[in-house]
Amino acid sequence: MSKITIDKSLFCLPWTQTLLGTHLNGKVNFMALDWLTRVNFDPVMMGICVNKLNASNDAIREAGEFSINVPTVEMIEVTDYCGIVSGRKTDKSGLFDVFYGELKSAPMITDCPINIECKVTETVDLPTNTFFIGEVLNIYSEERYLTEGKPDVKKVNPFLLTMPDNRFWSVGDNIGKAWKDGASLIQKLKST
Amino acid sequence: MSKITIDKSLFCLPWTQTLLGTHLNGKVNFMALDWLTRVNFDPVMMGICVNKLNASNDAIREAGEFSINVPTVEMIEVTDYCGIVSGRKTDKSGLFDVFYGELKSAPMITDCPINIECKVTETVDLPTNTFFIGEVLNIYSEERYLTEGKPDVKKVNPFLLTMPDNRFWSVGDNIGKAWKDGASLIQKLKST
Repeated sequence: MSKITIDKSLFCLPWTQTLLGTHLNGKVNFMALDWLTRVNFDPVMMGICVNKLNASNDAIREAGEFSINVPTVEMIEVTDYCGIVSGRKTDKSGLFDVFYGELKSAPMITDCPINIECKVTETVDLPTNTFFIGEVLNIYSEERYLTEGKPDVKKVNPFLLTMPDNRFWSVGDNIGKAWKDGASLIQKLKST
Repeated sequence: MSKITIDKSLFCLPWTQTLLGTHLNGKVNFMALDWLTRVNFDPVMMGICVNKLNASNDAIREAGEFSINVPTVEMIEVTDYCGIVSGRKTDKSGLFDVFYGELKSAPMITDCPINIECKVTETVDLPTNTFFIGEVLNIYSEERYLTEGKPDVKKVNPFLLTMPDNRFWSVGDNIGKAWKDGASLIQKLKST
């Protein structure tokens, strides 16, 4: 075995790139967000990791609301801009056409094919970051991004980030079917 | 605007497919894990979402340890098998060649290019799932998966899952550079 330990910051998990929507001092604000996941099956809940230094952290603590927006590959430049420039110094409220759902402090980006509206239910305080858990109130999309009523990743056309090489990636080819490809092994293993 | 609300279970975030390693009743066990994220910058911490019905949930509660293993596209069949078959009914200990790091109950898969060894620091109880937060003790890889000392996603060759269409995807093309592509907008916006 030729395993070696590598630096703990050297991850190689591609994260889906999103934009986190909040209200910062009464103004619409968006930051690039990569560290997020679904955290509960029923009800549907999402968890997001926000550094305590980020203005969005204060914004979510204050309002208890946020949105997750999935940009397309055509939005790479403006998405990356939202990750470089802080809402503390720069007004990002004019970057996007926004809309609202049920929540007053969770602005959503019209041009993003998927918008997820969340209300904070738990706040987990960690050393440098806060992990906010939110119940998903609504998910918004458009007919043109769906196939048979479900979001189609090839129509949505999201992109991924790997760190620390800091590269963006498209989603590649469909290479398998989950909860199906493994079924063939059940028989194979039984007969050995 | 032609936004519509869609079913809250209809996500379209590609998740990186991993395998969660635990000890279940003294035996090595792995389950397919998609809902995970980094949750803290320093120290490096990961959070994983495990349904309370899964045997791995009991295993992590008991040992306070787990591993995250990143399989390659060549491992789709066996990875999916680990997601279909429960460790309560089927002994999955013989599926992989495993190795150990510092922890005694966090078996890691030799054939996976990236292995992350975690010790639980917080357990967040949610309605149907548990969100386990673990400090990353070590990350393991091999020289052949690195470029300039860092994991190279094209050498690691992980795959992604979208739900609820339940399809596996490869990582596509490098289409941008983070913390760089957005910089051009800073000047553009200043001059408008």
